[in-house]
Amino acid sequence: MNLYDPFNILHSKKQLLRQVSGDIIYTGQFTDVQISIELITYNKKEVSFHKTNSIEGPFENDKIYWFNVIGLHDTELIGKIGETFNIHHIDLEDVVHVSQWSKIEDRESYLFSIFKMIYLRDKDMIHEHVAMIHKENVIVTLQEVPGDTFDGVRESIQKQLGKIRSMGSDYLYYSLIDALTNEYFDIINGISSNFRDIEMKILDNNLESKEQLYHLRKELLYLINAVSPIKDSISKLTKHNYHFMNHEMTPYYNGLMDHLNQIMDSLKAYKEMTNSLHEMQMSNVSNDMNKTMMILTVFSAIFIPLSFLAGVFGMNFTYIPGLNLKSSFYMFILSCVVIASGMLTFFKIKKWY
Amino acid sequence: MNLYDPFNILHSKKQLLRQVSGDIIYTGQFTDVQISIELITYNKKEVSFHKTNSIEGPFENDKIYWFNVIGLHDTELIGKIGETFNIHHIDLEDVVHVSQWSKIEDRESYLFSIFKMIYLRDKDMIHEHVAMIHKENVIVTLQEVPGDTFDGVRESIQKQLGKIRSMGSDYLYYSLIDALTNEYFDIINGISSNFRDIEMKILDNNLESKEQLYHLRKELLYLINAVSPIKDSISKLTKHNYHFMNHEMTPYYNGLMDHLNQIMDSLKAYKEMTNSLHEMQMSNVSNDMNKTMMILTVFSAIFIPLSFLAGVFGMNFTYIPGLNLKSSFYMFILSCVVIASGMLTFFKIKKWY
Amino acid sequence: MNLYDPFNILHSKKQLLRQVSGDIIYTGQFTDVQISIELITYNKKEVSFHKTNSIEGPFENDKIYWFNVIGLHDTELIGKIGETFNIHHIDLEDVVHVSQWSKIEDRESYLFSIFKMIYLRDKDMIHEHVAMIHKENVIVTLQEVPGDTFDGVRESIQKQLGKIRSMGSDYLYYSLIDALTNEYFDIINGISSNFRDIEMKILDNNLESKEQLYHLRKELLYLINAVSPIKDSISKLTKHNYHFMNHEMTPYYNGLMDHLNQIMDSLKAYKEMTNSLHEMQMSNVSNDMNKTMMILTVFSAIFIPLSFLAGVFGMNFTYIPGLNLKSSFYMFILSCVVIASGMLTFFKIKKWY
Amino acid sequence: MNLYDPFNILHSKKQLLRQVSGDIIYTGQFTDVQISIELITYNKKEVSFHKTNSIEGPFENDKIYWFNVIGLHDTELIGKIGETFNIHHIDLEDVVHVSQWSKIEDRESYLFSIFKMIYLRDKDMIHEHVAMIHKENVIVTLQEVPGDTFDGVRESIQKQLGKIRSMGSDYLYYSLIDALTNEYFDIINGISSNFRDIEMKILDNNLESKEQLYHLRKELLYLINAVSPIKDSISKLTKHNYHFMNHEMTPYYNGLMDHLNQIMDSLKAYKEMTNSLHEMQMSNVSNDMNKTMMILTVFSAIFIPLSFLAGVFGMNFTYIPGLNLKSSFYMFILSCVVIASGMLTFFKIKKWY
Amino acid sequence: MNLYDPFNILHSKKQLLRQVSGDIIYTGQFTDVQISIELITYNKKEVSFHKTNSIEGPFENDKIYWFNVIGLHDTELIGKIGETFNIHHIDLEDVVHVSQWSKIEDRESYLFSIFKMIYLRDKDMIHEHVAMIHKENVIVTLQEVPGDTFDGVRESIQKQLGKIRSMGSDYLYYSLIDALTNEYFDIINGISSNFRDIEMKILDNNLESKEQLYHLRKELLYLINAVSPIKDSISKLTKHNYHFMNHEMTPYYNGLMDHLNQIMDSLKAYKEMTNSLHEMQMSNVSNDMNKTMMILTVFSAIFIPLSFLAGVFGMNFTYIPGLNLKSSFYMFILSCVVIASGMLTFFKIKKWY
Repeated sequence: MNLYDPFNILHSKKQLLRQVSGDIIYTGQFTDVQISIELITYNKKEVSFHKTNSIEGPFENDKIYWFNVIGLHDTELIGKIGETFNIHHIDLEDVVHVSQWSKIEDRESYLFSIFKMIYLRDKDMIHEHVAMIHKENVIVTLQEVPGDTFDGVRESIQKQLGKIRSMGSDYLYYSLIDALTNEYFDIINGISSNFRDIEMKILDNNLESKEQLYHLRKELLYLINAVSPIKDSISKLTKHNYHFMNHEMTPYYNGLMDHLNQIMDSLKAYKEMTNSLHEMQMSNVSNDMNKTMMILTVFSAIFIPLSFLAGVFGMNFTYIPGLNLKSSFYMFILSCVVIASGMLTFFKIKKWY
Repeated sequence: MNLYDPFNILHSKKQLLRQVSGDIIYTGQFTDVQISIELITYNKKEVSFHKTNSIEGPFENDKIYWFNVIGLHDTELIGKIGETFNIHHIDLEDVVHVSQWSKIEDRESYLFSIFKMIYLRDKDMIHEHVAMIHKENVIVTLQEVPGDTFDGVRESIQKQLGKIRSMGSDYLYYSLIDALTNEYFDIINGISSNFRDIEMKILDNNLESKEQLYHLRKELLYLINAVSPIKDSISKLTKHNYHFMNHEMTPYYNGLMDHLNQIMDSLKAYKEMTNSLHEMQMSNVSNDMNKTMMILTVFSAIFIPLSFLAGVFGMNFTYIPGLNLKSSFYMFILSCVVIASGMLTFFKIKKWY
Repeated sequence: MNLYDPFNILHSKKQLLRQVSGDIIYTGQFTDVQISIELITYNKKEVSFHKTNSIEGPFENDKIYWFNVIGLHDTELIGKIGETFNIHHIDLEDVVHVSQWSKIEDRESYLFSIFKMIYLRDKDMIHEHVAMIHKENVIVTLQEVPGDTFDGVRESIQKQLGKIRSMGSDYLYYSLIDALTNEYFDIINGISSNFRDIEMKILDNNLESKEQLYHLRKELLYLINAVSPIKDSISKLTKHNYHFMNHEMTPYYNGLMDHLNQIMDSLKAYKEMTNSLHEMQMSNVSNDMNKTMMILTVFSAIFIPLSFLAGVFGMNFTYIPGLNLKSSFYMFILSCVVIASGMLTFFKIKKWY
Repeated sequence: MNLYDPFNILHSKKQLLRQVSGDIIYTGQFTDVQISIELITYNKKEVSFHKTNSIEGPFENDKIYWFNVIGLHDTELIGKIGETFNIHHIDLEDVVHVSQWSKIEDRESYLFSIFKMIYLRDKDMIHEHVAMIHKENVIVTLQEVPGDTFDGVRESIQKQLGKIRSMGSDYLYYSLIDALTNEYFDIINGISSNFRDIEMKILDNNLESKEQLYHLRKELLYLINAVSPIKDSISKLTKHNYHFMNHEMTPYYNGLMDHLNQIMDSLKAYKEMTNSLHEMQMSNVSNDMNKTMMILTVFSAIFIPLSFLAGVFGMNFTYIPGLNLKSSFYMFILSCVVIASGMLTFFKIKKWY
Repeated sequence: MNLYDPFNILHSKKQLLRQVSGDIIYTGQFTDVQISIELITYNKKEVSFHKTNSIEGPFENDKIYWFNVIGLHDTELIGKIGETFNIHHIDLEDVVHVSQWSKIEDRESYLFSIFKMIYLRDKDMIHEHVAMIHKENVIVTLQEVPGDTFDGVRESIQKQLGKIRSMGSDYLYYSLIDALTNEYFDIINGISSNFRDIEMKILDNNLESKEQLYHLRKELLYLINAVSPIKDSISKLTKHNYHFMNHEMTPYYNGLMDHLNQIMDSLKAYKEMTNSLHEMQMSNVSNDMNKTMMILTVFSAIFIPLSFLAGVFGMNFTYIPGLNLKSSFYMFILSCVVIASGMLTFFKIKKWY
């Protein structure tokens, strides 16, 4: 599995370089993505979809502009966007610095946010760096690779579904974040079925689930660490009043917080249950060993004395009492049966089989 | 056991659809329940019970109206209720979205709440989605399936028991929440007897309780996660002053909080005690293995040297000293007894039996 | 041991009934206790002890009245007390509802409190439900059974010890709570000697302490859950200014808080130490098993090869080299000694004995 | 080791007595210490050391008075001190009640504090009860036994080292607390070397460290519980402005808080590391057992089949094929070598030796 | 590995001495470092690098002065710096007291900070004590040994990279702290590769990683304790407005906090994962033992009965049935095969091989 490691911060060298030079350097791996900019302009009456090459005004007040930029490696373009919207240098750095975790910063004149998207594609967890800039009636989203996360939003704008066309840019901003967080529900579904699979195996005393369990725990830890800053960011939004955001957005953001809390609680509950699973697995191993030990002990305790008895009558002493009696052999067999039965009774009382 | 999984969020597809379209879609499984609406109108002097088909005014000021709606899949009806009371779209979505956890939202003009009920029916844990809308002297409760949770409230209205008839709609609202939380006491009783059963087994060194213990831990984790948002919601109600709620309701809500705290603390204490139980179980297994090992070792340590001795005198060497003496066999038996006694004494000193 | 289970809430049925009917129903088990009311009236100059049947005014301003009611099952009497002091219905319910945990409620016109007393009587932990009502210069205490907890307070009133006679009803209230919490010190002493007993056994590698340790852990969990709400209640008293309480009571309540914190910290420390004890016990078992294994292995590794050697010369092949030499037997014995010494040296190097 | 148990509260009987009677009763064990009072008076210009019998005014404003009282069992003397400085009765009780934990109380007219000192003397942990009263330019310290903790402060007053002579009584108060907390650094050093000793043993797979580790964990728990209230007290001092304390003392108290935080974090870190040590020890035991098991299995698996083979040819059947061939014995030896080599190869592949 | 122990506070003796005398005494080990002072003066237009011997004014207002002092053992020099900038005595003590943890103190007239740097040099973790004083347009940094941590900052001043030359001394101060914290990213990279190495070994069931895992856990605990006070200090800076710091520095410090949070979360996540690793390792050992046990039991259970059978026919009884039949031997062999097959079938059903 191509598991992303959110705890590893590999780009220190590039970052140091950046810090010294103050340049904007893309630290991700998708340097060969074809850069493209999609512009969606709409208001209550009309909507238009364009491909464009640059992000420049003038912006009319009665329309909402959404620029969706694919590809972050053209730092010159990023620089221009910065100039157009008067973005702080430190935010432009974060747009292209893919180790940066999710965050929302309210810079008086604009709202800046970074989201770490996590989604499943062919059973692999893909992690993507998404930046969003919100300034008055313009929203710019910047992604590393093309994806379908925003397709639902695009569709509801085009087909005039729901309220999106009749509300402001703050509702679009909310819809985009909502689309991003919806990806997490898929992740939870994946975790959930994975958990049930392992649980079934362990309840069946199948010992092969050991590594699977370890990887599930690791994944859960990753996800908790990835969702946590998103939750903190949205929580900040709902508490501090951000001045591009209309008061009537509050119920929507409260709903979003509810979802994030539910995701977080689920992840934590799964994590705790993996501990219980691990403990039951350890119990299973101990029980198995115990049973193996009992079988060994039963066999040994029955046959070791009998073998000794046979050994005694196999000795070459000239005189061994009863050696010449015809009944001796049958006496011996009888003794063996008595000893074995005694042992078995003893172990039966001990409830060993 | 038909265990509900509150951490699993299965309806992401439907939900996504809803988000895009903005439609109200019921995400639960009870789509074949007969929809029915019961209307209870009462004041200090009179009370009436009706079946009705729609929830519409006008509502007289000197009466309290309680609409109890069974079945959530008629989204048209839900939509009409929304219009009648001017309910926010996002709340109507939560009425029919059964993965939504418990919550209370104060929307200036009305109070909206979702409760996840958990109750035992024939040893199965049933989870039900209940929505409540409180606006001035009207309360609407919406349930997925018919149930007897509100029977006590209905009875006390009808028979004029307690204060319910002489108090306002806020007291009815409190009584309904109280009835919902009372179901949890039954759950705790079930958990408690289950715990005592497993505890007894483990104290008796019965190893079969392993899976039972695992399921109890899982259930406790579920319940803690289910009760927690209810507690948070009620706590919010007692702290923020909600303007349909009379000041004299405070003692009642404080009492409710006390109960919920007690339930929560009990669940957490049981959870912690299952850990102690698990550890004692592991101790039991280790002790058992230890005893098995000791028996094996005692048998082996006694008979293996004796067998060797018998083997020595069973060798076919032409010359083995003492082979022809008549007393040799008795000497041999004596040696065996001495060796065995020595071993047993050694193990007695080690306190092995 | 007759261990009370503070987490079990058995009376849901009675409670439900009560909730529906609004009646006051005693939910405890001491329904055959002889009901008695003791009235102590005192001021700086005089003191009088009476038996009485009812709690009624008028109450003179220059005296302090303490009614000590034994037995809670006479709900009519409880009702009358409620009327006399104008007690809220919900508080009267808590007076007789013995599953209710410790709490203090400030109802403007009076102060209401519930305490769960825990004390040792003949090695059994007794749990008792005590309610206290404080209104101006009158204090009513309500107990389930007669007991000696308040004897110290009674004595200091009678013999004019300390400041109690020269101070107000708030000091009496404090003295009663102080007497209740003092019982916990005895409990801690019991826990402490119990802990030392188990610790000694485990350090001596005595494996019988397993169940004792489990019960100690359970008891500690119980006590922590029982003391916690008392601590919260007293803490609320010290923070919120309750208007029957003189400013000069603050040092006394701070002292009480110190004691409760010390009790709580002790309980938590003991709980943590039981974990260390459990782990050492597990270590002991593992070590024992390790030693048993080593003895078995040493015996087997020495005698199994020797037995094989004896078996070889016991074979009935016509030709086995050296079989007819007189020195062969001594050669064989020598080989055995060499093999055994080699094995023992090997295990000595491995530091096994 | 004479380990003090801060969690044990033994004096409940005496305490109860005290509570009833309101008397001041010394609850410690040092009742035979010779009571002595040392008085140090100083200002910028002069300093004098006296032995005295009583603590009485008048106190001149331009001098600082430090009374150091050794021995707490003369409750009459304590009573007189209480009168001189107008100390609250409840504080006088704490002066002589040695189970009382560390605390600082700001009683408007004076500052009262209790400190539990812990120091090493000849490898034993000594616990001492120290009370301090600070009123304007007078400081009274009360100790159970004579000790050298304050020697540094005494010396710096005498030799005019540092700023102590040029600053007020608040600086003296700080210096005394600083001297008390400095003792903890020695304790940490002791813990640290003890930890390293055990760590070394466990890394060397020495199993004897089991009990040592248990005692270290217990000690750490003790220390954390002892330091915690001191930290809380000093923290309260730095936050609430106490009116005998000059604003310029803040940096000193902040420094003290830094030290206490460092001590606390160190203790907690050591406690956590003892858990890791315990786990490694358990790993060691398991590994050892595993190796023992492997040796046993290798020996058994090799020789048991060979012994069986020898047994077969030792049978007394009249006809056993090959019994009379001269080469049979060598064939048999060859078979044994082949079987043994096969087994060893099998275990080599399993990487068992 | 030369692992620094941040929990050990070795210098108590020296410290006590210092406390008594009030002298400034360097408590570190680098007493033979050549003391040197580098002075960098710059503004937008010009920059100059000097070696100097003393830190003295006058300081021109339109320039920024950065003194970088190497070597802390010249306490006279430290004293002079203290006089020049009017530094509090307690801060000068911390400059030379290398056990002091990271902290930032805002002393109205200047900002004082201590940082514990941790960096890798040839696989060793080096810990260094760095003090920083910021007063208006002058910044003094004091290091124990020469190092390259500040080289990036020096370079960006010299080559006029980024904004450093056009901004004030507060930006320089930020750049220096940023350079210090950047070292931690290297540490995380080291931890990360170390973790992956151990993980790989444990997933491969390699048991030698036991000690490596212990050391990793210890290191993680060290780092968490070292980073935590730095995080607290920076967090204090971002919350309290420090009056040498321009409002426009806030985004930079927020970015710094983000990095420190990311470092802290990574460390904690790694620590938690080491627990999972340890548990999997324990699982591995148990599984291995289980398999060894099974092999032993299979061998014993098959051959012990067969050996007994061979022993029976090896007895020297005059009459043993069938001893003289020619087919007996083949019957015996057949019986052996039947018994062995039966056993193997039994174990196959038990799924043991």
